[in-house]
Amino acid sequence: MLILGLDPGLQCTGYGLIDASVEPTRIIEAGVIRSDSNAPMAARLCELADGLRGLLAQHEAQAVAVEELYAHYDHPRTAIIMGHARGVLLMAAGNAKVPVHTYAATRIKKSLTGNGRATKAQMQRTIASRLGLPTVPEPADVADALAIALCHAETAARGVTV
Amino acid sequence: MLILGLDPGLQCTGYGLIDASVEPTRIIEAGVIRSDSNAPMAARLCELADGLRGLLAQHEAQAVAVEELYAHYDHPRTAIIMGHARGVLLMAAGNAKVPVHTYAATRIKKSLTGNGRATKAQMQRTIASRLGLPTVPEPADVADALAIALCHAETAARGVTV
Repeated sequence: MLILGLDPGLQCTGYGLIDASVEPTRIIEAGVIRSDSNAPMAARLCELADGLRGLLAQHEAQAVAVEELYAHYDHPRTAIIMGHARGVLLMAAGNAKVPVHTYAATRIKKSLTGNGRATKAQMQRTIASRLGLPTVPEPADVADALAIALCHAETAARGVTV
Repeated sequence: MLILGLDPGLQCTGYGLIDASVEPTRIIEAGVIRSDSNAPMAARLCELADGLRGLLAQHEAQAVAVEELYAHYDHPRTAIIMGHARGVLLMAAGNAKVPVHTYAATRIKKSLTGNGRATKAQMQRTIASRLGLPTVPEPADVADALAIALCHAETAARGVTV
């Protein structure tokens, strides 16, 4: 089963595509979809959607996994802009008929490390170890996207579709 | 010039298409694009984008106008969900190559009534009067969308593209 984890951001959306049907779980492709910060918002959102469409056309992902929305954000305006990016990515997944699953941050941490309050460093080490990577994935958006994909792989049966 | 004002919302997006090339300005079409609250988020966002795509395909709007994001929101989580809707709508406008213009709420009020702190009732009366409507447009999302379209019509030359 191919699972695509996404960490949405207008400037930079992290993605991590894993194959959870092999042991150990294997990375197929991971990276970032960037948008041109000089372009109008509408054009940037088109870039993100096109990037995801391209990935989904290239690989037959069976699921997209993203982090759930929180109840509170420290920077609401930044979060709303992230919401624009998350919206177009969910929409592109929906158009491609790939189901979207969401997981709370604590659930992702717990699923990977056994501790819902794991530090970023603990998470990165676990991700590298699970995927047999010699170093931790960078930038952080990629690591976060892989973490969400791994969480879905381990809890797929209980995954919540939104 | 046909201008499409939008008041984005996941549940209900108000729209108002006006023809600003005639005197007095005339409504071509106004209403709401709704999404099915029982459907997954991705499907709802597809519904909104499809709705806007349909409107833009049917009418040759030269501009889309939406309200600017604020600095502060009373309900950040609700605002982030609005951001999802706003994102897919901007993207659909971008895909259709229709430029998007944004205006601050105070600018919209000032443009229509001369007072940046106009009440909702004052705004509604002005909208009805400008467009020669016998009653105020309802629901509020439609009135808000028409207000934004009228604001762009009056300030198009100075409109900010985002």
